[in-house]
Amino acid sequence: METIRIFCPATIANISCGFDVLGVALDAVGDEMVIRKTVAKGIFITKLEGQELPMETSKNVAGVAGLAFLDASDYEGGFEIEIYKKIKAGSGIGSSAASSTGAVWGMNELLGRPFSTLELIRFAMEGERLASGVAHADNVAPALFGGFTLVRSYDPLDIVPIPSPEELFATVIHPQIEVKTSDSRKILKTKITLKDGIKQWGNLGGLVAGLYTKDYDLIGRSLEDHIVEPIRSILIPGFDQVKSSAIASGALGCGISGSGPSIFALSKGESKAKSVGKAMKKVYKNIGIDYEIHVSKINIEGVRRIN
Amino acid sequence: METIRIFCPATIANISCGFDVLGVALDAVGDEMVIRKTVAKGIFITKLEGQELPMETSKNVAGVAGLAFLDASDYEGGFEIEIYKKIKAGSGIGSSAASSTGAVWGMNELLGRPFSTLELIRFAMEGERLASGVAHADNVAPALFGGFTLVRSYDPLDIVPIPSPEELFATVIHPQIEVKTSDSRKILKTKITLKDGIKQWGNLGGLVAGLYTKDYDLIGRSLEDHIVEPIRSILIPGFDQVKSSAIASGALGCGISGSGPSIFALSKGESKAKSVGKAMKKVYKNIGIDYEIHVSKINIEGVRRIN
Repeated sequence: METIRIFCPATIANISCGFDVLGVALDAVGDEMVIRKTVAKGIFITKLEGQELPMETSKNVAGVAGLAFLDASDYEGGFEIEIYKKIKAGSGIGSSAASSTGAVWGMNELLGRPFSTLELIRFAMEGERLASGVAHADNVAPALFGGFTLVRSYDPLDIVPIPSPEELFATVIHPQIEVKTSDSRKILKTKITLKDGIKQWGNLGGLVAGLYTKDYDLIGRSLEDHIVEPIRSILIPGFDQVKSSAIASGALGCGISGSGPSIFALSKGESKAKSVGKAMKKVYKNIGIDYEIHVSKINIEGVRRIN
Repeated sequence: METIRIFCPATIANISCGFDVLGVALDAVGDEMVIRKTVAKGIFITKLEGQELPMETSKNVAGVAGLAFLDASDYEGGFEIEIYKKIKAGSGIGSSAASSTGAVWGMNELLGRPFSTLELIRFAMEGERLASGVAHADNVAPALFGGFTLVRSYDPLDIVPIPSPEELFATVIHPQIEVKTSDSRKILKTKITLKDGIKQWGNLGGLVAGLYTKDYDLIGRSLEDHIVEPIRSILIPGFDQVKSSAIASGALGCGISGSGPSIFALSKGESKAKSVGKAMKKVYKNIGIDYEIHVSKINIEGVRRIN
């Protein structure tokens, strides 16, 4: 195989009680990439459509992730990458992770899978380091594995794929405002109360149990965050209204996607997820903020080949 | 049925990353109780063997839990309770929870199960309130349900039973020293770092996932506690040595049982759990501290009727 065309899913990280550890892959929104072997050694971004992003290899997340891959590989040649961005940069649904992950997954396929999924995650994390200064794994892991993924530990890196119940759907609304990741990091407190911590790990345990047992009510009850959401939501106009409207429309839970400004809701069934979307939209219409909205089933296979 | 004889299991609470939320029931150690209907209204502790504990109803945890039960019940009569303590008070393996839980479960059986398990937990929690000043549920929940139980939330009370893989065994060593629950509470810090919190909920998610998927290695990797264990273990002489010996002998993980001084280890298979027990014993033999040791499969049914 000389060329591969792939779909790289958007992802929701920081799922409520799963701050910094739990992410999930979407199916209805993601980038497309074409990756082609080259005789020349190196990574060459030859096309980049849909977003204004640097094409220079060392400044592009797919380029940097690709270089990490190439560096670890015996392969003598290189790769040409075309990127068709559908995910907006800065939206909070893993735009950079989609590009980083797609690049290394595609290259691995073209070379006959010399690397394990865990190794690919490490390469893709280098793209995340370029994008945000931190080599986090909570978007790249679900983009690669699909479904929900838990980053149990970074040192050593330990990723736990968790199945998604079939009827679980996500609604994501992206208000067209800018929240800098650095700002949303800066306002976090470095200390939390033990009491809030206990609530958080109780909820995360409940969420994981709910995912395994397909207990939608338990999933809903566990989608709580007493630590990060109360602080970060201040940066997202209309957050409280969007959340209460989503819950009132039957969402199991609702929270900040990644570091925002996108807001996600999880629902049982597609029609519920659509009603939830309508309710969320209405809030931003009333406030007068433009938005993009996605209703998606959970992507259970991760990045994949397309024709 | 006028009389019931029951086995009330010992339990391990605060399982490493599951501080205040995760407990598990043991099978090889527990109290026995006989409960008998009486015409006279009230709870009467008529026998208490094995431990020096108050027999006055209002000062005995089984008595207080029983009164909570009776108070909520339409039943016009009362109950006589005989308690045969096998679990030492203050050992950190749910001695008070066994008595409270046994009392209310047995009464409920005698009356034809008017109350749900969740209601019984509430009654038993009153016994815990008497014992420690806090109506916690992390010992009474596994004593009632068996297996592992997660207290996702106290308000509202939300208990999630989690299955135990068949080959999981517990080793518990009880050094014969006194650690007051109030002291072990007092030394806890009210604030923790967000960083440690993230590790903790990552580990709890991993532990719950490992229990559902019977992934013993994942269970082992997740049995970490960077928050409470480093502080409380100071009160338990030899803790670090016991833990490192247990791990060196093949235990999946090791930590403080409840608020101590007992130390538990989880292992795959009974023979491993026994070797781990030998290694733990050796430490206290060398230090010269008396101990009691239990090797037990996980009790998956909770409190039960015996003949």
